[in-house]
Amino acid sequence: MATDPARSNVPTASGLEGVSIGQTAIALVDGDAGRLIYRGHDAEVLAREATFEETAYLLWNGRLPEPEELADLRARIHEGMETPPAVLSILGELGPDALPMDALRTGMSAWGALRRRDEGGDETDGIWAVAGSAAVVADFGRLREGKDPIAADPSLNLVQNYLLKLTGSEPQAAPARALDAYFTLAAEHGLNASTFTARVIVSTLSDVGSGLVGAIGALKGRLHGGAPSHVSHMIDEIGSEDRAEEWLRDALDRGERLMGFGHRVYRAYDPRARALGKVAEELGGEDEWLRLARHVEEVALRLLAEKSPKRPLLTNVEYWAAAVLGGVDLAPDLYPATFACARTAGWTAHMLEQLSANRLIRPTVEYVGPLPEGYGQG
Amino acid sequence: MATDPARSNVPTASGLEGVSIGQTAIALVDGDAGRLIYRGHDAEVLAREATFEETAYLLWNGRLPEPEELADLRARIHEGMETPPAVLSILGELGPDALPMDALRTGMSAWGALRRRDEGGDETDGIWAVAGSAAVVADFGRLREGKDPIAADPSLNLVQNYLLKLTGSEPQAAPARALDAYFTLAAEHGLNASTFTARVIVSTLSDVGSGLVGAIGALKGRLHGGAPSHVSHMIDEIGSEDRAEEWLRDALDRGERLMGFGHRVYRAYDPRARALGKVAEELGGEDEWLRLARHVEEVALRLLAEKSPKRPLLTNVEYWAAAVLGGVDLAPDLYPATFACARTAGWTAHMLEQLSANRLIRPTVEYVGPLPEGYGQG
Repeated sequence: MATDPARSNVPTASGLEGVSIGQTAIALVDGDAGRLIYRGHDAEVLAREATFEETAYLLWNGRLPEPEELADLRARIHEGMETPPAVLSILGELGPDALPMDALRTGMSAWGALRRRDEGGDETDGIWAVAGSAAVVADFGRLREGKDPIAADPSLNLVQNYLLKLTGSEPQAAPARALDAYFTLAAEHGLNASTFTARVIVSTLSDVGSGLVGAIGALKGRLHGGAPSHVSHMIDEIGSEDRAEEWLRDALDRGERLMGFGHRVYRAYDPRARALGKVAEELGGEDEWLRLARHVEEVALRLLAEKSPKRPLLTNVEYWAAAVLGGVDLAPDLYPATFACARTAGWTAHMLEQLSANRLIRPTVEYVGPLPEGYGQG
Repeated sequence: MATDPARSNVPTASGLEGVSIGQTAIALVDGDAGRLIYRGHDAEVLAREATFEETAYLLWNGRLPEPEELADLRARIHEGMETPPAVLSILGELGPDALPMDALRTGMSAWGALRRRDEGGDETDGIWAVAGSAAVVADFGRLREGKDPIAADPSLNLVQNYLLKLTGSEPQAAPARALDAYFTLAAEHGLNASTFTARVIVSTLSDVGSGLVGAIGALKGRLHGGAPSHVSHMIDEIGSEDRAEEWLRDALDRGERLMGFGHRVYRAYDPRARALGKVAEELGGEDEWLRLARHVEEVALRLLAEKSPKRPLLTNVEYWAAAVLGGVDLAPDLYPATFACARTAGWTAHMLEQLSANRLIRPTVEYVGPLPEGYGQG
């Protein structure tokens, strides 16, 4: 019997919550304990004691690099931050008003096309992805201001070169160290939607560049990449410590969500927020804006505990990411693309893990649409 | 207790086989009956009686367009095939040796960046995607030969304009009709890996352009997009009817898979192969290559039935896609990108369906890697 298409209901969707795609040895997000483990290492400890480059190596290889391996990696990353002229031209063609996430997606797609990879990948592609992403975001940041791109300096590490390429001047130690901790804490977070996207793409045996480009597109969505720049705007809008309580109370009374509080997985304090809060403190010293951020957090936590005493929302990573990224003078509209540069380490680790024991990822869906007249009776 | 990372096993992967992501009203792939249904219509019937543009409208809206709706759609598609100068420059920057799938991925990422869509999408984005993809592949095809891009003609439909833009001359009726049937039959095929990728990406509320770019990357993988050009090479290599049996028998004796035979879902004859076989027949007339293709198919089916009498492999869509695409003189390395242009209709229909009842798609994964010393004892 033919069904009237106009009568079909909107199909219902599942988010695959709780459905496992198998096993990983890369990261454990322990929401109850409030801990984030990268291959046996606490991410909080790595943020203090290791650099982002060492963390990327760990995510790819399952162990931290020996000194000579790290030196080799840094040399290859430096080389990988030389954006090809064709990619620079392409970033220029996009114009200064392009969304930074779109510029990153397009720049890495173009760079991938120049590399002409047919399929799969190995650690070489991981190095290309982390070095190239940071270079592309920084170059785009310069180009959109009408300035010339800056070459990376072989004596600096990836995060230092990111700041150098963005600003044109040698980065100071404290902000570079703070941003490095941010990169380490944002490098990996289990099977979120962008990481899953990257794994699905390479599960067809497509190349790591294609997986990277897909993951950037997924992170662009506000249900995933979030909006750390909204936190900055909130703190800017509050403006001074004495206005914090009234502003936050009004927002909660209007039923608004406070930016930078609450997380789907972490019931305990988000370990990344805790680590970044410390970084912000060290970075800030007597910085007024960071002191305001700390005060706003304290008031918000008190009001959120009043509202739901049994299960109050706690500070999430976005809150302190905003503080740290603002503290190193990054333009707020570059926050999501900077997040992507860091997460590239985790995306590529997951793609290599997927390829090491690959199965095409292809779930099913139930058809609830109309059928032709007499279907199934023949 | 700390685990030695070197002792961790390779994690096992699941392909989510048989796991449902919910419901769809777009397409039914009925492998047992050998039928493919687009919103209540047999795809085989649509390939004979409708154009690709009507099929895209059907996939987006759940019904075929009225004449004035179709006229409006065609006008908008014609307009959508005007590639922006910046995108043409970008395709030029990639150089003539870029893989066509990489050029399509990059061209549409760049075009998406120029459109500056923050999130989500509607039918306007679907029209942009189908018109833009066809324009980008055709423009790249011209540019890599050192020729100037050709403007679309408002009196022609999408597939006719694709041929016009590729070749520079008004397409003949028979090849244009054959390619239109191919586009219709390739437009949609349920929840394959690229379509799933597109749905995961927009489930974060990212934009349709990001989903499209991710899907192109997934289709690039040979486990998904396959290799219809390999079928052409096989037929070329066989060369003449009298060599077919010996060539095919030798290949099977060596344990090789015959290109263009067998399908994961279809146990009955693939309905797309059946429809395209008819199209090839009409296209071919007395064409020698198409007669050879038919003969090779007959011999291959006989040998495959000898080999597995109970469940012989049957001809799949790639076989007759190769014949039709070869019959319209398309360069074999453009087959996958041409497939992508057609599938864009299905990808966008799925993205709009996902957005209409969205839930973030995020499965889980089990951590089997090492833990820090004393973990879980504190």
